[in-house]
Amino acid sequence: MEMEMKDQITSLLEEKKYRQLRDLLAEQNPADLAPLMEELEPTARAVAFRLLGKDMAAETFVELESDTQTLLIRSFSDAELKEIVDELYVDDAVDLIEEMPANVVRRILDQTDPETRRAINEILKYPDDTAGSLMTVEYVALRTGLTVADAFANIRRTGIDKETIYNCYVVDDDRKLLGMVTAKSLMLADEDDVIDDLTEHDIITVRTLEDKEEVARKFAKYDLLAIPVVDSEDRLVGIVTVDDAIDVIQEEATEDMEKMAAITPTDKPYLHTGVFETWTKRIPWLLLLMISAAFTGKIIQSFESALAAQVALTAFIPMLMDTAGNSGSQASVSVIRALSLGDVRMGDVLRVMWKEARVALLCGLTLAVANFGKMMLFDRVGLWVSLAVCVTLVITVLFAKLVGSTLPILAKRIGFDPAVMAAPFITTIVDALSLLVYFNVASLLLHL
Amino acid sequence: MEMEMKDQITSLLEEKKYRQLRDLLAEQNPADLAPLMEELEPTARAVAFRLLGKDMAAETFVELESDTQTLLIRSFSDAELKEIVDELYVDDAVDLIEEMPANVVRRILDQTDPETRRAINEILKYPDDTAGSLMTVEYVALRTGLTVADAFANIRRTGIDKETIYNCYVVDDDRKLLGMVTAKSLMLADEDDVIDDLTEHDIITVRTLEDKEEVARKFAKYDLLAIPVVDSEDRLVGIVTVDDAIDVIQEEATEDMEKMAAITPTDKPYLHTGVFETWTKRIPWLLLLMISAAFTGKIIQSFESALAAQVALTAFIPMLMDTAGNSGSQASVSVIRALSLGDVRMGDVLRVMWKEARVALLCGLTLAVANFGKMMLFDRVGLWVSLAVCVTLVITVLFAKLVGSTLPILAKRIGFDPAVMAAPFITTIVDALSLLVYFNVASLLLHL
Repeated sequence: MEMEMKDQITSLLEEKKYRQLRDLLAEQNPADLAPLMEELEPTARAVAFRLLGKDMAAETFVELESDTQTLLIRSFSDAELKEIVDELYVDDAVDLIEEMPANVVRRILDQTDPETRRAINEILKYPDDTAGSLMTVEYVALRTGLTVADAFANIRRTGIDKETIYNCYVVDDDRKLLGMVTAKSLMLADEDDVIDDLTEHDIITVRTLEDKEEVARKFAKYDLLAIPVVDSEDRLVGIVTVDDAIDVIQEEATEDMEKMAAITPTDKPYLHTGVFETWTKRIPWLLLLMISAAFTGKIIQSFESALAAQVALTAFIPMLMDTAGNSGSQASVSVIRALSLGDVRMGDVLRVMWKEARVALLCGLTLAVANFGKMMLFDRVGLWVSLAVCVTLVITVLFAKLVGSTLPILAKRIGFDPAVMAAPFITTIVDALSLLVYFNVASLLLHL
Repeated sequence: MEMEMKDQITSLLEEKKYRQLRDLLAEQNPADLAPLMEELEPTARAVAFRLLGKDMAAETFVELESDTQTLLIRSFSDAELKEIVDELYVDDAVDLIEEMPANVVRRILDQTDPETRRAINEILKYPDDTAGSLMTVEYVALRTGLTVADAFANIRRTGIDKETIYNCYVVDDDRKLLGMVTAKSLMLADEDDVIDDLTEHDIITVRTLEDKEEVARKFAKYDLLAIPVVDSEDRLVGIVTVDDAIDVIQEEATEDMEKMAAITPTDKPYLHTGVFETWTKRIPWLLLLMISAAFTGKIIQSFESALAAQVALTAFIPMLMDTAGNSGSQASVSVIRALSLGDVRMGDVLRVMWKEARVALLCGLTLAVANFGKMMLFDRVGLWVSLAVCVTLVITVLFAKLVGSTLPILAKRIGFDPAVMAAPFITTIVDALSLLVYFNVASLLLHL
């Protein structure tokens, strides 16, 4: 269906049926139109873009990839650029500026009115990944002491440009945040009521420098539509809205999954990332893990004579390594996710270890029994080899689960992202451990 | 800090200082209070719970684990139960009923007024995981033709019990959905305006049976606060609000991560899942993967004589298997996440393969060159063994990336969850493949 739409746009462009195209484009949703725009040739895209209404143009623009945005801005006249920038919410303008090359940034700032420019610079000074960088300054602030009728008048006067008018923030003369009054309570109240009687005082806030992941977690936990951002003196400096929190939640989940799979995170969609860029995100980890795996090779080498004496032992190396790796990654992913959802904290490390130790014993014993049966019935490798493999299984599953569950917590404690302690790293460590256990157990039981 | 709060509650309970405890509890946020309640002894919890105000009791109740809810309900008199159930939003009541044992469900429904009971049964008839099961029936519906003043009067009369009044839905006499009018546009309009002039008609909707993951995706894509749910005749039957969409996004991300790590998903928090339950979520996959790994062992066994002739080959088995596994899991996780965010569709399979093939060649060649250098300089295993290992690397990385990227798409096409095609399965398949390639390349080059 989208292909059809793209063809329709292309053919209307070719036949120069601009009026018809304008009507077609006006019916689309910006979030659907943006990916279509991405697919067009740059000149066709610039023409199609000029046919959009002002609102629509701005809303579609923020949905585009940054490469496409740069190309479009280069094709704009200063007047056209100003029209788009004026329509953007301040936080979207900041996102745009953060992605653009320096000369484009200068052009954008030149086209921005002084007040907006001040607001943009205010947000730009906060480090990436903080609440400050995520917030918008377009919120409704109401002075304490207003009546509901006054509040309505204030909202009508200023509300059209605000990102949300549903949470209004009550401040004193120093802009200190006193509380929040919702549009719902205003709408259900009498005109003469004073807003202070409707104000919730114990509200959830975040500091400007708070991690944006923590901000997103608060949205999820407390079911919020917006969260006020305050400075160290409790003065209101901005708000974060729920749509931005959802983006953070999705980005963070993607980042965690990428790190768990040994990929350097990127915020570009999969098919929009070039081959070379994808390579740069993956190859450092593959190289690092390949080198680490060499240690596993060294362990095998040092037991070469034992292996030569009992060739049957070699056949079980992949199974032991895989099972240990899988056991470890189950534990590490469970703990990484629990840490990121706030279900497990750093202080819980002993509870986690105690739980994983018991799960590991259950898992290890089940696997050992199943494997012993299989080896005696099908592999016919002799009692002592079977015993060596099964004893190794129990010990390595225990090691793997303990290592897998504690390393993410340790990583967090020393300031790393727990997600890097997932499958690939755990596997490498646990591989080496399981081989050491295997060869030592085998040497002991088989007198090698 | 939370521990302190728990100690404070416990000691106030022990000293029977109920008035002081009531004041302390009233200051808490339900989302913070619920985990504290979980930690209390059942009888202490029942006492503390009775000290909560009606609103607070209901809001805290929905945040509790279902085991704790069951215990509490058993301690309630019918009158107390009715008080809680009356305060619940219908969708929360449905969630509660879905988790409770049958005799508790009967008691809850007995305490519910007939209208709410009808609404609950309406929602209960939709399968889990659909928009219908996620929706609430407490929304504001406005008849076409009303003035803004009429609309306000309607909202004031009915709004107090609605989950959101910020999106109001305009329906005709048959409850067919005509569009949406936002509280913002109502607040900024004149009293005499007709709402039809403020109504957005091209709005995003979902069908009752649409997958809840799809619903969440629409929230993220279109930045919505609520989404109307319509039946097959476009009649409005309910709405889904953004707080529920956030829960779905987080649950789905957790589920995907768990599946990627070969764990059967559970919606219980990590530390609230018992050892035995955790074991049941993990052991089936470990057993299955252990059995699959046996095939890898068989491959090694069938090349035992070749390995005995060139023992040096054995030392590189772990590195080759790990690198292949890591390469495959990078590709599979990238594609699984892109599928779930809607960045890749089933029709993109050829584009994905073409991209992964090029990335794989770049990665494989880099790894081969690095490895060849390392083997010649440090391992000193001879040119032909080094060549065999490096040629195997290039071929297996290519295989691994192609298998890793296409299996999730294939899984989706035949109706499985792509996430099960992540690391553990890919690793098992790719392990076997890489050994087959290794032994064949080695036999060829070393004339074994």
